Amino acid sequence: MADQLIPRRELRFQLYEMLDASALCDFPRFSEHSVETFEAVLDTAEKIAEETFLNHNAKADQNEPTFDGKKVSMLDEVKTAFNAYRDAGFIAGHFDFEDGGMQLPSLITNACAGYFLTANPSTTAYPFLTAAAANVIRHFGSAELQAQFLPDMLTGRFTGTMALTEPHAGSSLADITSSATPAEDGSYRLKGSKLYISGGEHELSNNIVHLVLAKIPGGPTGVKGISLFVVPKYRLDENGEPGTRNDVSLAGLIHKMGYRGTTSTALTFGDNGDCHAYLVGEPHQGLRYMFMMMNEARIGVGYGAAMIGYRGYRYSLDYAKERTQGRKAGPQGNTSKQCAIIEHGDVKRMLLAQKAYTEGGMALCLYGSYLVDCMACADDDEEKATLGQLIDLLTPVFKAWPSEFGPKANDLAIQVLGGAGYTREYPVEQCWRDNRLNPIHEGTNGIQALDLLGRKLWQQNGQGLDALMKRVKADFARATMPQSRALSSRLLPYIDQLDTLIRQSAEDLRSEKQSIALTNASCFLNIFSACVVSWIWLRQAIVAEAALAEGSAEHDADFYNGKLAAATYYIHWELPLVKRDIDIISTSDATCEQVAPDYF
Amino acid sequence: MADQLIPRRELRFQLYEMLDASALCDFPRFSEHSVETFEAVLDTAEKIAEETFLNHNAKADQNEPTFDGKKVSMLDEVKTAFNAYRDAGFIAGHFDFEDGGMQLPSLITNACAGYFLTANPSTTAYPFLTAAAANVIRHFGSAELQAQFLPDMLTGRFTGTMALTEPHAGSSLADITSSATPAEDGSYRLKGSKLYISGGEHELSNNIVHLVLAKIPGGPTGVKGISLFVVPKYRLDENGEPGTRNDVSLAGLIHKMGYRGTTSTALTFGDNGDCHAYLVGEPHQGLRYMFMMMNEARIGVGYGAAMIGYRGYRYSLDYAKERTQGRKAGPQGNTSKQCAIIEHGDVKRMLLAQKAYTEGGMALCLYGSYLVDCMACADDDEEKATLGQLIDLLTPVFKAWPSEFGPKANDLAIQVLGGAGYTREYPVEQCWRDNRLNPIHEGTNGIQALDLLGRKLWQQNGQGLDALMKRVKADFARATMPQSRALSSRLLPYIDQLDTLIRQSAEDLRSEKQSIALTNASCFLNIFSACVVSWIWLRQAIVAEAALAEGSAEHDADFYNGKLAAATYYIHWELPLVKRDIDIISTSDATCEQVAPDYF
Repeated sequence: MADQLIPRRELRFQLYEMLDASALCDFPRFSEHSVETFEAVLDTAEKIAEETFLNHNAKADQNEPTFDGKKVSMLDEVKTAFNAYRDAGFIAGHFDFEDGGMQLPSLITNACAGYFLTANPSTTAYPFLTAAAANVIRHFGSAELQAQFLPDMLTGRFTGTMALTEPHAGSSLADITSSATPAEDGSYRLKGSKLYISGGEHELSNNIVHLVLAKIPGGPTGVKGISLFVVPKYRLDENGEPGTRNDVSLAGLIHKMGYRGTTSTALTFGDNGDCHAYLVGEPHQGLRYMFMMMNEARIGVGYGAAMIGYRGYRYSLDYAKERTQGRKAGPQGNTSKQCAIIEHGDVKRMLLAQKAYTEGGMALCLYGSYLVDCMACADDDEEKATLGQLIDLLTPVFKAWPSEFGPKANDLAIQVLGGAGYTREYPVEQCWRDNRLNPIHEGTNGIQALDLLGRKLWQQNGQGLDALMKRVKADFARATMPQSRALSSRLLPYIDQLDTLIRQSAEDLRSEKQSIALTNASCFLNIFSACVVSWIWLRQAIVAEAALAEGSAEHDADFYNGKLAAATYYIHWELPLVKRDIDIISTSDATCEQVAPDYF
Repeated sequence: MADQLIPRRELRFQLYEMLDASALCDFPRFSEHSVETFEAVLDTAEKIAEETFLNHNAKADQNEPTFDGKKVSMLDEVKTAFNAYRDAGFIAGHFDFEDGGMQLPSLITNACAGYFLTANPSTTAYPFLTAAAANVIRHFGSAELQAQFLPDMLTGRFTGTMALTEPHAGSSLADITSSATPAEDGSYRLKGSKLYISGGEHELSNNIVHLVLAKIPGGPTGVKGISLFVVPKYRLDENGEPGTRNDVSLAGLIHKMGYRGTTSTALTFGDNGDCHAYLVGEPHQGLRYMFMMMNEARIGVGYGAAMIGYRGYRYSLDYAKERTQGRKAGPQGNTSKQCAIIEHGDVKRMLLAQKAYTEGGMALCLYGSYLVDCMACADDDEEKATLGQLIDLLTPVFKAWPSEFGPKANDLAIQVLGGAGYTREYPVEQCWRDNRLNPIHEGTNGIQALDLLGRKLWQQNGQGLDALMKRVKADFARATMPQSRALSSRLLPYIDQLDTLIRQSAEDLRSEKQSIALTNASCFLNIFSACVVSWIWLRQAIVAEAALAEGSAEHDADFYNGKLAAATYYIHWELPLVKRDIDIISTSDATCEQVAPDYF
């Protein structure tokens, strides 16, 4: 069975038809790039992903890393893939030329990431975490810290982690107890335990650079007293090379149900009182720094979820075209030959749903990356601020919607394969297991709902919401052809309802209904997300319908008709499900809020 | 953390308050039983499940059976558990006294099954399959076949399998190619391959009795030419003991993502032309026989899905009561102590949903078993026929609804546990993996939808539907207290809509809209199931509200209030989701039907 990761046609549609990736090259930052360099980078990503990542996706799942008390061992293929990724310069893909990076738009680096994420999400985690950690140091670290760690991280000689969670403090970071005490040499001595730290130990690199949240004694309580530190596995010697082993140790590996190739670790810092840590930026600003990087990280999680979903979709699609079973409904009866299962209505439904979820998630998150690029490049301060607000507002959707519907797509892929889908002889069950992490990490989807309803909507007097609605209405105005117009008129009443609910929520949150409103926050996120994703699908439909009207080649006509079908599916079949959520919020349904713990 | 499998309070509610289990003892068949004997059997089941099944649920998942080319090996604990189950007489639980059984109502044997299914579904599969195969032989096998195999199967000396699926024929059994040729000795020689045969090889018993579907050459084509055979692993010698190895061999084990303790096998019959097979009943009636056992098997699948869901619910409930994280929303702010996560609104929502899904599924399937008992005992032919039609009609719901919502409950259990839920250090991810099989086997849920819409609704002029509606309306009349009345008035318009849609579907299926109607069959199943489950929850609410009015003890008041909360949750939060499905069907939405395979 063909195992093409992502058809380039799809990416080109997203990058150049839905978005205007080539226009990014008009910004000074990207002026040395062109569609040709973008395509060349995509070619490289595709090739490396197919050749060195895909080959051990199942194998790494079946042979997870082990720890013998001294060293973590894993498949050699992981190192080969990591090196290929590193050698191609991808870790520094969106970093500046002056840092040795490719200075690519995040739109393009994310598009590239799609190849790696569909091929092998668990091996991909190592370089991705390294780039994310390097990005934090680049933004907030002192010149000295940057000089010490950045070059080696960007070339992949050193890898990075994000060490936030503690056994008793996951969603509630205010409660971390790791402490960092100033030492005479200007550094700190860190003490504490961290849990679920991905990539926390391995032999892929010469050094591991942990970014650790900890409290400096005497600082403010709660989230305002959290600082951020660089804690290397090996301290650097006078030549900047890894020297003395730092006092960080692996307490044990955690065994996840998916992403099994990525080490998940419990780490202990300062057991012997000698864990050297280097403050990043100012004291007590750690959580703020992490949050400033959060939007991009959350787009990344959503995009990853969409991509793992996409892998399952493509596989089940190929399977449905090849697998014969049963007959088409109709008069031919038992005597005719079996048909491919893609001919069965319910299988088409399951494929169309997967397409709507995964291409919808891809389009959504690439749009997010595009906004990030536009914001970074905007020279008008007001526009920059507005784009920032828009990204802030949409971040809970970027993270939560694909991470809810990517796994749903994987579930449908299993169902399309039937009994085969449930076995480890086929790849779709692994996709499903891998993807289950995404609704949890980088802020559970319940927390995303609270973030949207409790904070993001009202930030800067709702500037983000205004920016969103302006864009939605502009697209309504563009939806002039028959199918797009029909879809936009189905969507319009939901947008109007959303407006009403937002005004109601503003009042509820300031009244005795506050607790009910917060309990039902997930319903609000459902409505908001469905409106946003419907709009994203409307945009795809507008582009597709226009292209069809221009008269496309036959193969392209199928492609565009597929986009129209998926847009129609989403707006006819998925959007109406939020009528339930509209009812719950507009009636202030108190069922969940009022249930007492003892009733269970 | 407490790991009580099912609180007896819950089972007592289902058996004696929702249903009238003690009234079953008025039937001659069950006249030797009483509530006391039922409770004694439940005690035994609970004890064996806790002591010998629960102990190796995770271990069997982590150490699945292996095949060295000659023999299948598995954990010793599986055999210990199997023997304990067998020795307590559970395999023959609902068989006649004269067959050495306990002649228990299937309501009670299913209630017992709950303990085993929550404790360890994969070890449970071996005795369950044996009982199911024995049941087929008991109903359709000749006296000689029964004498040869039944006693040893009912005592668990022999185990059984159901060998239906072939590599190219799963949902489409008409296309099996296994063949059985008459031999001179009156038996047959079977040849063919079977796939995904659970329990197809192991060393738990002295012999394995495969029930195999095959075609006798020269018979009718399609499903009408399928016959059923007994194929033992060892042929019986003159003393009825396992003797010569029969020509059945294990081609290999299949590696499932869940139920990993149950061997899933590829079996080859007659490689050496010497596979002895014994016809069950008449030639060409095999599929009919299997279908006559299907209702009970499908209730069993639904019940199992609800029970695995229930295990996750109870575990996540205990976790939510113990795990502290974050603070209650309100003015206390950052300085107050962390609260148990069950205090958070969104966690309560996830627990209440799990309760609604799993206790709903339990109540639904136990109601199904109760109907089976009433039908078996009915001495009025008309009543027997009506009950049979009602069971037929509800079977797609018994199977599909819990197998869709049990896994959803497991998904929510993972989410309640957060990062911990995603790790194999906690049991909920295994529940989720185990349960994923249930929407597929015993007829995929897509096939259940076609079975309902294409066949069951119209059987015997809709007699089953009439019987259902009579019962629903009787319960509406009983819903006189405030909360129950409010719930019934929310449900009523859906029941009216359902009636309209059924009349519309009758027309659609005879018109050019047939293909659209069949493509959207899953929407119909959604509506029908949601109405049935709402009714089941209304029944629970009626009982609970009446008990509260009588003035219960405080602990019982919490229990009954919990039932009312879950009923309210289901009818307020879940039922309205089918408005989408009502729209799809009433507008004959053709989105899925019209999408061409090339559009993907």
